[in-house]
Amino acid sequence: MENIITLTTDFGLRDCYVGVMKGVMLCINENVCPIDITHCIESHDVRAASFVIGSSYRYFPKKTVHLVVVDPGVGSERRPLAIFANGHFFVGPDNGVFSSVIHSCNGFCAREIKNRDYLLENASSTFHGRDIFSPVAAHLSLGVSFSGIGPEIKRPEIFPREEFSINGSEICGTIVYTDKFGNFVTSIPTESVGDQAVVKIGGKYIAGISESYSSVKPGEILAVRGSYGYIEISVNQGRALDVFGEIPPEIVIINERN
Amino acid sequence: MENIITLTTDFGLRDCYVGVMKGVMLCINENVCPIDITHCIESHDVRAASFVIGSSYRYFPKKTVHLVVVDPGVGSERRPLAIFANGHFFVGPDNGVFSSVIHSCNGFCAREIKNRDYLLENASSTFHGRDIFSPVAAHLSLGVSFSGIGPEIKRPEIFPREEFSINGSEICGTIVYTDKFGNFVTSIPTESVGDQAVVKIGGKYIAGISESYSSVKPGEILAVRGSYGYIEISVNQGRALDVFGEIPPEIVIINERN
Amino acid sequence: MENIITLTTDFGLRDCYVGVMKGVMLCINENVCPIDITHCIESHDVRAASFVIGSSYRYFPKKTVHLVVVDPGVGSERRPLAIFANGHFFVGPDNGVFSSVIHSCNGFCAREIKNRDYLLENASSTFHGRDIFSPVAAHLSLGVSFSGIGPEIKRPEIFPREEFSINGSEICGTIVYTDKFGNFVTSIPTESVGDQAVVKIGGKYIAGISESYSSVKPGEILAVRGSYGYIEISVNQGRALDVFGEIPPEIVIINERN
Repeated sequence: MENIITLTTDFGLRDCYVGVMKGVMLCINENVCPIDITHCIESHDVRAASFVIGSSYRYFPKKTVHLVVVDPGVGSERRPLAIFANGHFFVGPDNGVFSSVIHSCNGFCAREIKNRDYLLENASSTFHGRDIFSPVAAHLSLGVSFSGIGPEIKRPEIFPREEFSINGSEICGTIVYTDKFGNFVTSIPTESVGDQAVVKIGGKYIAGISESYSSVKPGEILAVRGSYGYIEISVNQGRALDVFGEIPPEIVIINERN
Repeated sequence: MENIITLTTDFGLRDCYVGVMKGVMLCINENVCPIDITHCIESHDVRAASFVIGSSYRYFPKKTVHLVVVDPGVGSERRPLAIFANGHFFVGPDNGVFSSVIHSCNGFCAREIKNRDYLLENASSTFHGRDIFSPVAAHLSLGVSFSGIGPEIKRPEIFPREEFSINGSEICGTIVYTDKFGNFVTSIPTESVGDQAVVKIGGKYIAGISESYSSVKPGEILAVRGSYGYIEISVNQGRALDVFGEIPPEIVIINERN
Repeated sequence: MENIITLTTDFGLRDCYVGVMKGVMLCINENVCPIDITHCIESHDVRAASFVIGSSYRYFPKKTVHLVVVDPGVGSERRPLAIFANGHFFVGPDNGVFSSVIHSCNGFCAREIKNRDYLLENASSTFHGRDIFSPVAAHLSLGVSFSGIGPEIKRPEIFPREEFSINGSEICGTIVYTDKFGNFVTSIPTESVGDQAVVKIGGKYIAGISESYSSVKPGEILAVRGSYGYIEISVNQGRALDVFGEIPPEIVIINERN
């Protein structure tokens, strides 16, 4: 069970970077089971990577090691980081990429990666994914002591929490992610919204929260309790992103008064 | 050997959906070996998914579990389905996605997924891939009793078989799939066509069935006995789709008279 | 450890070809651990595949089997090939795809794949990746005798080495690869260049070799010692390919005189 390492990067699928990282892991732990989350994060989009790993990690077994490499500052003074939180390990740059993970936990322990025993020799300054993060992840998957990674970091870089505000029956939020189907994921948690709520977004009104995409006709807009745990705006068999033409700056939901 | 689970979806590679499904499986069966068939089925294209899994499953070991999630009706009254056929297990929505599999078998046993012991708690209405199909697939990979999944379904949804017709020496068919190389896969089985046959497609004539792509000059059209078991129309080092400009509505092959 | 098989192809991720190859491997060796290097080599670009596998293989454990299928001549008289070099196995067409691997080794042993015991029955003439290369790779991963594969090939197809020339303090090279981030990988090894060198490329001058991407301002061009072992031309948080508009025909580096 300790052998699972997930990978989340902006490396894309065209080059050998991801394969090489897995090779490095397998040289250290021959039983590693590498699982791709995605390698198609927009180049250098640290916030999207934070959303993706923050939404994914809890579906994996405890002790899984989660490698995240979206790292525009590679080779600069930004620190390489390992975190233990909620029973999972996380490895990547200290650039805010673990913000959602940290927001989701009651506590965490973070360490700066310093122990050279866990790195490749002659680490490059342009590919820490291969030379630093992958070998550390592989060693963690072998069960090495977490405190041996390096000195504690009290305050890793963290983005502010995605916001939503409640004013009486009105809830204001934003779009935090757009998925492959063109669905808008909002910052408004599903549990704060009643079935009869009215949604205002991009000049349009949606009456009520639907049970599923097919609750409305093909091509129609709907709001659903999305699988990420937030209200989503979708189009049955279509793309919200195409219908709205752009990502609306805000969403307002008015709950029915009791 | 019972630990292999293949995945075929239209989820794409940009979001965390596929990784999360594998995490769910690994929580249930830590020895699962997930193998991607493809996640790049055109969104909601149930027929393409049926072709892909119907063409692929038999290359895997018996007892492999094949998860297919192309599911525009997720959360509606369409039933979640598990099938045992030809020694393989299949899990996905009852929307026709297993048509090619069923057409390829002499018999099958289908069950509606109802046993809550095999599902995630609090299943969402928008992501059955994570909450229903992945956990059921993982339990099947552990060897649970197939009949315990739920009640039998006598008549799952099935698309009609891809057609071809034989009139004397003339065989009529259609294009059923276009692959990444721009090759047209037809509905005409290779064994029904002689080496000297003449092919009429999109206003063009092709004389004879070629042994391989390089039997003709680069840029030339040819017909080959394709690896799917059907006649394919290709262009040596080029793309049939580009040469024809569109998918021709039919293909006619005239066998040489004996 | 002998169970790792890497895959490098131009099959893309849309069709079932890659999944089917893994199924074939798993039928022969149920413990195979397939690791994708990339399936997004440009169709039929044998040279790019040679660069990718030549840059990747040494990061995997010894005895790994590396399958490379970029094979425009499939079914023609080009020979199917297995190579043992540097402690690794390689399987693919004899079309130059292993040039970089061979250039990187002091010696190698190559064999023509002829032993039918290691192939699928009734091999097609259009999909040797499935019918010839995958089963041979799987058998090699089981530890079968390499000499039993078939007769020795003394001179497999090899492209000339990527060139660079040194004239006093001036080094001339070319761009051999452009990665997903738009970085240019050159043919000039990092160890031949001093920190104070001046780079001339595409009408622009770059002064000095940078430590990392973030050594310059966002949007600025820089030269770095790249992770492939060659000088790379990059743009901090941008794309060299976009800044130059095309791939420059040559790069000249002038080392500081001592």
